[in-house]
Amino acid sequence: MPNLQPIKVGLCGLGTVGQGVMRLLGRNQAEITRRLGRSIQISCLGMRSQKPHLNTAGMKIYKNIMDVAKDPDVEILVEAIGGEEDARTLTLEAISENKHVVTANKALIAIHGHELFSAAKRQGVSLCFEASVGGGIPIIRAIRESMIAGNRINALKGIINGTANYILTAMSEENKDFDQALAMAQQLGYAEQDPAFDVEGIDSAHKLSILAALAFEMPLSFGQVHIEGINQITPQDIQNASKLNLCVKHLAIARALETGYELRVHPTLIPKDDLLAHVAGVMNAVEIQQDMAGPLLLSGAGAGAEPTASAIIADLVDIALCTQNQTSQSVASQAFQPVESSQRQILPMAAIQSEHYVHLNIKDQPGALGRITQILNEQSISIKQLIQNDQRTKPDGTAEVSLIMLTHKTRRGVLDTALQAIGQLAETRSDIRCIRVETSQAPPNNQSESNLLSA
Amino acid sequence: MPNLQPIKVGLCGLGTVGQGVMRLLGRNQAEITRRLGRSIQISCLGMRSQKPHLNTAGMKIYKNIMDVAKDPDVEILVEAIGGEEDARTLTLEAISENKHVVTANKALIAIHGHELFSAAKRQGVSLCFEASVGGGIPIIRAIRESMIAGNRINALKGIINGTANYILTAMSEENKDFDQALAMAQQLGYAEQDPAFDVEGIDSAHKLSILAALAFEMPLSFGQVHIEGINQITPQDIQNASKLNLCVKHLAIARALETGYELRVHPTLIPKDDLLAHVAGVMNAVEIQQDMAGPLLLSGAGAGAEPTASAIIADLVDIALCTQNQTSQSVASQAFQPVESSQRQILPMAAIQSEHYVHLNIKDQPGALGRITQILNEQSISIKQLIQNDQRTKPDGTAEVSLIMLTHKTRRGVLDTALQAIGQLAETRSDIRCIRVETSQAPPNNQSESNLLSA
Repeated sequence: MPNLQPIKVGLCGLGTVGQGVMRLLGRNQAEITRRLGRSIQISCLGMRSQKPHLNTAGMKIYKNIMDVAKDPDVEILVEAIGGEEDARTLTLEAISENKHVVTANKALIAIHGHELFSAAKRQGVSLCFEASVGGGIPIIRAIRESMIAGNRINALKGIINGTANYILTAMSEENKDFDQALAMAQQLGYAEQDPAFDVEGIDSAHKLSILAALAFEMPLSFGQVHIEGINQITPQDIQNASKLNLCVKHLAIARALETGYELRVHPTLIPKDDLLAHVAGVMNAVEIQQDMAGPLLLSGAGAGAEPTASAIIADLVDIALCTQNQTSQSVASQAFQPVESSQRQILPMAAIQSEHYVHLNIKDQPGALGRITQILNEQSISIKQLIQNDQRTKPDGTAEVSLIMLTHKTRRGVLDTALQAIGQLAETRSDIRCIRVETSQAPPNNQSESNLLSA
Repeated sequence: MPNLQPIKVGLCGLGTVGQGVMRLLGRNQAEITRRLGRSIQISCLGMRSQKPHLNTAGMKIYKNIMDVAKDPDVEILVEAIGGEEDARTLTLEAISENKHVVTANKALIAIHGHELFSAAKRQGVSLCFEASVGGGIPIIRAIRESMIAGNRINALKGIINGTANYILTAMSEENKDFDQALAMAQQLGYAEQDPAFDVEGIDSAHKLSILAALAFEMPLSFGQVHIEGINQITPQDIQNASKLNLCVKHLAIARALETGYELRVHPTLIPKDDLLAHVAGVMNAVEIQQDMAGPLLLSGAGAGAEPTASAIIADLVDIALCTQNQTSQSVASQAFQPVESSQRQILPMAAIQSEHYVHLNIKDQPGALGRITQILNEQSISIKQLIQNDQRTKPDGTAEVSLIMLTHKTRRGVLDTALQAIGQLAETRSDIRCIRVETSQAPPNNQSESNLLSA
């Protein structure tokens, strides 16, 4: 790896997103440095008020964010102040000072994008905005670098506001009305005290105009997006839709037709067997129709400190690679060089833990089930769920039942030992079926990382 | 746009994938040229036998594929011959001739990857393989450029063989046994006459070893993947699983633990409300767990001529951008410059066609429904589905019923006219609810494109 200087970043705004960027760099700096060949260093911060819990060692601190744009050390400015007018002024200032800019600000891009991209192009700097749509979902890069490389995109539709999707999910799964679901969302921090921006569809429309501009190579057209919110949706609507095998989602939809573009955000019914119908809670998803590669769906965390920070870091890495002209870094060969320090081995299957589905037939007689559970007990295997059914009489006159068990997590090797013993019981009347169960992983708990910010 | 020379490609192998590449370039060459700033030109073909239906005008044709690797005009060689040993020899030869290589060959990468990437690194050329996993799903690029930019990846799981997924879907949705479902897959061209490679999990294991190597920065470890096929799965398994609210999928799973890696391909039960549970038929999907950005799922067409070709074109574009060092091309500013020739406008909502859900209450009296359907008829709006229920008696003694209608596709403006008239009927007893229905788009019909290959 070449021993390059750190790339110096000025971070403006230390709210949720800004703090997420600091936390992510604190946690994964070693990985980023190894992959990039140089480190990403926050050399200065722009924040209007002191935040005593932040570890700002080695960073210059400016109360006037414009000073970050002027700081001669800064190569890339991360705009995380939010809002619209100040963010525009800051971004233009940074560009005029010959700095690249990374932003998560969809309103900024949707409303002032043309002005900003023109300025960046004239100045020969990058303006990156992966975090502005879909949070941690790399939808911007996927459209730019993969999809429109060889395809024409015909249409896209998505759930791109987590607040609205949370409310609709609560209404349909927990039978709440809109006001109740909104109150739940506010309590959990998913909705602002003034939720208009999210539930009325303005946020989705900002994002839709960005996606459509990229996908169709059309101008940014936020002002022309048709917008309807979800506040009029009733539990009755949801129940009726359900009778038709449909469910309600707040979709942002763009379509390129011969005659023109469709750009719209509104409550929409979709078939219950659509993938989008199963995107629940605060999750986001975008489905894109390509002329050659067909449909592509991306689903993930649409907001939150870490997902948004992750997208910002991807932009920083991208700019760092471009500016250092290490083009070989962005091709595949590098990715397969194993980490020298890795001492980890391939685990044998017997050591792998999972829940298991077990099915067998047993003679229907007193004590049979007891003997089976005793064997499982001896191996410390606990049962999560057990269904006994299908009693039937065999030609030889014995009564037989089917036993379906779901185990808690257990090592397969241990389970195999137990199943072998069960197979030898006199009551066991069939082969034993055993299949691993893969349950969803719990989301990573990043709470414990917040102490990285403590001084 | 700079007026650069076309980038010259040598294409080896004119089977499904190779023909897909020619078809895609034939169809979308203008878009590709505009976006890239230069055209991608197939300057020569390597194919063992003539294919008279191909339009090969202007291309050199070699019967010996090794001659493509030696052709001095060729800058990038596309390896689409398949198999393993010949593909390895061809790729090494091309690399030694200082040519970049693009391949869709997962066996090649999974088995010979280390040798090939080392050779490419020594020679300073690129070896790209986006098409090798997940067909049209840009999973390689998403991992390399977006996910591991700032994240550690903890685990991934996926449905990465469309044949096996088709068979399991047919077994669970159409109640077939394995042999019946396999026969269906063979009849539709989804399964080979010898289906072992797909249904026994070898193909999935090739792909899994590639994904894990990228995601965990570990060596390619195909030989150590635990592999079980789906040929032992019975309809009874599927029915039992269903009673537990689970469904059977053939998953490829990789996990990085403190103690080592899990690498396995086997039939797996997953909760029915998992997104992966709803990835049906020949579709593929991969779900990746990141430490900061959380889970990310990508789902799309995992195989087929056009999706695979689309991934190959994305690699060609990537290499073209890297080699011409137009780094500004790969950053965002370019993407927002609208196409000058575009005259298309934003459509008004009234002109947008969709199915609609309509709900109202009407007086339960003879002729009421007739008057409503007459109004719809006058506007040429046809009803797809109609549910009349919930008869109840109001305080004033009149009987009322609820009417739920699903229309066929209609312009909203026309429907609004009809609904206004219905609202003025004496029988109408409530506000009229109307919500757009978004049904899945039919997959693009590329059949008509095949004539691009005719001479």
